[in-house]
Amino acid sequence: MENDTNNILKAIDVILNDRKSEDADTSYVASLYQQGTEKILKKVSEECTETVMASKDLCKEPNSKTNQEHLIYEVADLWFHTQVLLAHHNLSSQAVLQELARRFGQSGHAEKANR
Amino acid sequence: MENDTNNILKAIDVILNDRKSEDADTSYVASLYQQGTEKILKKVSEECTETVMASKDLCKEPNSKTNQEHLIYEVADLWFHTQVLLAHHNLSSQAVLQELARRFGQSGHAEKANR
Amino acid sequence: MENDTNNILKAIDVILNDRKSEDADTSYVASLYQQGTEKILKKVSEECTETVMASKDLCKEPNSKTNQEHLIYEVADLWFHTQVLLAHHNLSSQAVLQELARRFGQSGHAEKANR
Amino acid sequence: MENDTNNILKAIDVILNDRKSEDADTSYVASLYQQGTEKILKKVSEECTETVMASKDLCKEPNSKTNQEHLIYEVADLWFHTQVLLAHHNLSSQAVLQELARRFGQSGHAEKANR
Repeated sequence: MENDTNNILKAIDVILNDRKSEDADTSYVASLYQQGTEKILKKVSEECTETVMASKDLCKEPNSKTNQEHLIYEVADLWFHTQVLLAHHNLSSQAVLQELARRFGQSGHAEKANR
Repeated sequence: MENDTNNILKAIDVILNDRKSEDADTSYVASLYQQGTEKILKKVSEECTETVMASKDLCKEPNSKTNQEHLIYEVADLWFHTQVLLAHHNLSSQAVLQELARRFGQSGHAEKANR
Repeated sequence: MENDTNNILKAIDVILNDRKSEDADTSYVASLYQQGTEKILKKVSEECTETVMASKDLCKEPNSKTNQEHLIYEVADLWFHTQVLLAHHNLSSQAVLQELARRFGQSGHAEKANR
Repeated sequence: MENDTNNILKAIDVILNDRKSEDADTSYVASLYQQGTEKILKKVSEECTETVMASKDLCKEPNSKTNQEHLIYEVADLWFHTQVLLAHHNLSSQAVLQELARRFGQSGHAEKANR
């Protein structure tokens, strides 16, 4: 599982690139690409709103396992659709992780975090 | 770098947990926690809007390196603030990655992606 | 036209209340009510994102009549769907206008504006 | 009050135009104009998110007068900041109301609404 988790964003990047040559009638991601940037941005925003609503629900019942899983599910949707956006722009999640590593990595806090 | 990238989300989770015991006057993340869920959700939404705007700018000039880096920067901000939200709810990025692995992993598309 | 414009928000409130007793299969607004608050909030957010994108397009070509009309169209969609939200909560646009009048009216800037 | 309410959006348009010649150091709206389109769009989006959160709170306690007033307050903020956006683009709320009147007015539902 550990390896799977470590590499899942990279694996999704590969899948999202494969989808570029698939049929918009049979692939959800291919249909997003075909509908264009604004459609993808609307999906990203929608998942953001769903994340906001799931967090509000969790605030109401902080110990609800269902609500916790719902928030995780919506954040997964949000991250996935930002990966679709990146792929649509011929970019990848790895560039985002590198930007985060630049901010938090090595000489900074991540080193401390690794202790 | 590879390892750094693989582990950066996990490293950020650790940092975000450390911030819970820090002073809101000196730590940005601690000040977000202190201001509460709605403040964090407003930041997540703001980063989403900045992602939308950066994508629109990139559409205008698809080969602009500056615009590409700007989109990556904003997605990094968005992911980071969703991690703050998860930490605030005592959840972690690893649960999100596991959810993504459940959807795309092993028996599914990720396996194909690993070929 | 003047009177129409003055009263259009109130007229829409009336229409939106009428829709509460209509069939979700034939009325768009009735179907939104039936799908519930989260569906309506997702529509409000979607129209907000479309407003953001239309404004970015207008920035690119500030004299484009098409882009100006597109922004107006999206703001109209946004205001309309907030009215659906208000109606869903048994509130009305008139309460919003009263709040705005409270802020800007009479003793304040609106008086000056009426000069 | 009736007249005030009818004309408040128009009065705000006038105020927002006046602000264009004011000092960004002393006028909130002038400072938004000076910070530019993206700052205004971030405010519009923020007010949208606050509307979403206020609606979720109202769902929790549908009879809470405080929560009702809070939603109305946030929708007023949202409408106001879309008016700032329109003014920034040299457009006005009247164009939005005319678009709504075009959709719902006269021959359509508004006539029915006026009965």
